[in-house]
Amino acid sequence: MKVAISTSSFATADSAPLDLLHAKGVNVISNPFSRKLTEDEIINHLEGVDGLVAGLEPLNNSVFTQCPQLKAIARVGIGMDNVDMEAADKADILVSNTPDGPTDAVAEMTLSAALALSRDILYSNTTLHNKEWKKSIGLSLKHAKVLFIGYGRIGRKAAELFCALGSQIMIYDPVVDINDMKLGEKLVELKEGFATADIITLHAGGNKSILTTTEFEQMQNGVIILNSARGELIDEKALITALDSGKVASAWLDVFSEEPYTGKLTEYEQVLLTPHISTYTIQCRRDMEITAVNNLLRDLGIN
Amino acid sequence: MKVAISTSSFATADSAPLDLLHAKGVNVISNPFSRKLTEDEIINHLEGVDGLVAGLEPLNNSVFTQCPQLKAIARVGIGMDNVDMEAADKADILVSNTPDGPTDAVAEMTLSAALALSRDILYSNTTLHNKEWKKSIGLSLKHAKVLFIGYGRIGRKAAELFCALGSQIMIYDPVVDINDMKLGEKLVELKEGFATADIITLHAGGNKSILTTTEFEQMQNGVIILNSARGELIDEKALITALDSGKVASAWLDVFSEEPYTGKLTEYEQVLLTPHISTYTIQCRRDMEITAVNNLLRDLGIN
Repeated sequence: MKVAISTSSFATADSAPLDLLHAKGVNVISNPFSRKLTEDEIINHLEGVDGLVAGLEPLNNSVFTQCPQLKAIARVGIGMDNVDMEAADKADILVSNTPDGPTDAVAEMTLSAALALSRDILYSNTTLHNKEWKKSIGLSLKHAKVLFIGYGRIGRKAAELFCALGSQIMIYDPVVDINDMKLGEKLVELKEGFATADIITLHAGGNKSILTTTEFEQMQNGVIILNSARGELIDEKALITALDSGKVASAWLDVFSEEPYTGKLTEYEQVLLTPHISTYTIQCRRDMEITAVNNLLRDLGIN
Repeated sequence: MKVAISTSSFATADSAPLDLLHAKGVNVISNPFSRKLTEDEIINHLEGVDGLVAGLEPLNNSVFTQCPQLKAIARVGIGMDNVDMEAADKADILVSNTPDGPTDAVAEMTLSAALALSRDILYSNTTLHNKEWKKSIGLSLKHAKVLFIGYGRIGRKAAELFCALGSQIMIYDPVVDINDMKLGEKLVELKEGFATADIITLHAGGNKSILTTTEFEQMQNGVIILNSARGELIDEKALITALDSGKVASAWLDVFSEEPYTGKLTEYEQVLLTPHISTYTIQCRRDMEITAVNNLLRDLGIN
């Protein structure tokens, strides 16, 4: 049995997921590029392969047609936007993901970014490394109003952490119910949330822009924007205009419409940029990779 | 009545503390340098002054002898190392501080630094601003063992926050009792703490080095060191050796033996340096400044 790996960092944090495959006598083919594969590269990578431990590369009808022996795909992560589920179903390919794996790590990273930006850590660190002693005054999360857009697993876990610090939590999510609010969160309409939030954090799905010029205009001056969900949720040009005007004081982006990201926001010092690493902790990667490998072995009928 | 201000940022976050002095008809003299004053400068600044809203400038016998009309000193903050209490007592000067004011802000800043370092945010941000997409794998605080050295007000509040994230907490403090451990913390000897801690955070008083070559040698490889307490608690040369060898993976320093700091650690990218700003949030500064002003007005007999 042959299994290909397409995630760029499989088993680098901990060898356990790879050991698990080897223990079952599986022939493992690693990602030779250490980055996201293109359609042509993944087709090449899947030659003669039965199962794939998948990253974010395109997995569509064209790939499935050219790799007829592929029987199962196990995504390491939640997002399934890169997998054409209908085409996979037609091609009799079983597809799985790891919906619980990223929750804690992404929630921690969101808090981490919120604290770094609200306390102006990047500026302080850069100036002091340049031997300039400049004190800037930050915002206390204990006193901050935080708007969550999207309130699934990760949003809820992140809200718990902000709550533990004393922040006031506002939630906008069209599919949650007032009875789901267990932390004293306030369910709001977007307009109300924008008018009062000190920090706005995105935890929604989909590929439609949620923050465009219209929404930025409704926000408080000096707001902090956080996005660990999907790059497409923010209209980048509108964000740049809002940064230029000071409407948005600072922002954290871990996800981008196009990755690797090399765009204009790299010129903005007040924007914290991280390369899609919200799930990149030793513990989270190990747990998600082990879950994905177990899903794949199950779907390939290997016990 | 004349009151001098020697803190460098008094009433810049919020004018309320200054309004309070003006409302009592007090003549207020601001710090003209916007930084910590020297002994000569503070003597000059205190000419004809009845009360001082004090920062970290030297307030000793020589100052008190040359400023005989000074009746009260109100420190904005906890630390009293810069005030010679015996000399103040002899000179009949009433001295106060704001012991509760900094707790929340310093605890938040400590968590903020722990998250920034454990998730390698500085490296990721710098490389991505240089248009390089390099994923590094961090440590999850949920799975981290954190050693607190010193367990007073700030240590306890910080431990609460780490606990909310799921960290395992170890405490070393010769004056706390096992019955004070309310969060499931483990009271340890330093040696045990050093051998297992992923993160070590200082919340002790005094001016004696706690972390020297001997202590660094007892730590795990790749440990993270946090210091928001006092610069003197860490032997800087020993820290540099430990950084060079990789024993210490990264560190955060907000306090230094000499401030402003311009020393060798500015050359270390893995060291997060901030200019003594752990209490610098709008809410914390306002609250501490209002408390200090009220202490001073009380001690000057102004109601």
